Amino acid sequence: MSVRIEPLTPEAFAPFGDIISLRDAPDMVINQGMCGRHHDLGRVDFGTGRAGISLFDAKPRSLPCKVDLVERHPLGSQAFLPLNGVPFLVVVAPDAGGKPGPLRAFLTEGTQGINLLRGTWHGVLAPIGGQGLYAVIDRIGEGNNLHEHWFEVPVLVCA
Amino acid sequence: MSVRIEPLTPEAFAPFGDIISLRDAPDMVINQGMCGRHHDLGRVDFGTGRAGISLFDAKPRSLPCKVDLVERHPLGSQAFLPLNGVPFLVVVAPDAGGKPGPLRAFLTEGTQGINLLRGTWHGVLAPIGGQGLYAVIDRIGEGNNLHEHWFEVPVLVCA
Repeated sequence: MSVRIEPLTPEAFAPFGDIISLRDAPDMVINQGMCGRHHDLGRVDFGTGRAGISLFDAKPRSLPCKVDLVERHPLGSQAFLPLNGVPFLVVVAPDAGGKPGPLRAFLTEGTQGINLLRGTWHGVLAPIGGQGLYAVIDRIGEGNNLHEHWFEVPVLVCA
Repeated sequence: MSVRIEPLTPEAFAPFGDIISLRDAPDMVINQGMCGRHHDLGRVDFGTGRAGISLFDAKPRSLPCKVDLVERHPLGSQAFLPLNGVPFLVVVAPDAGGKPGPLRAFLTEGTQGINLLRGTWHGVLAPIGGQGLYAVIDRIGEGNNLHEHWFEVPVLVCA
């Protein structure tokens, strides 16, 4: 089975999360006109935990990319912000009765980040084209915040 | 009056905040060995508010840089994560009875981010060498989260 990468648009991605990128215009201009603030771009949600800032240093993958596992974090949202400009593959799925439904695939570009909603099924971080460094804003706290689902037959994500 | 930029080390910066950069080794290796997680690198603290992810799109400054204003956020920490590789000047000061004490200055490099502790006096975001794009992780919520202090005589920050 294979899935094709579709364009990463706010509308297509909204059921799964948010694209963290500049709006057409800033919400506020601060610092005596020197800085535009594009305000509160992700639906962050850490429930009973707190926000943490971590770094993920991830080895490169390539396309087509084999996906044999998706996971979800039931207790909090998770955002990925690219620090070295390496695009990453975003594989997500709606929930279908506690299991992932049909996979969908997107690819970020340049400085785009994404924020996954709490509980969104997603593939593991997959930088395309180079070693990727990402700031990750996710939940720190007690409780089991990881569900995994392994596919009997891997899904191939194609450009 | 002028202040020289000093090396940005965790020890020198600790009273003001955290440097968000890779540790010598990851705290966890995840994704079947493909990704190192450098965990919980900043002392985030949003008190009565919640975490938000915003973007700051800031015009370039140059060195020497005139600082006529510092500010602080009494209700929460504030982190800056560089998305397009532009270093930024970090001007901070200890508190001295409700006013900033002697200024200190640091310059980030490459993919380094910083997290300012709640209440740290700091200069405004100052990308050096180009238009800078930064993800900002700070507090969203009610209340006055901004104190400003204007200097009668601007301070010059030199390389």
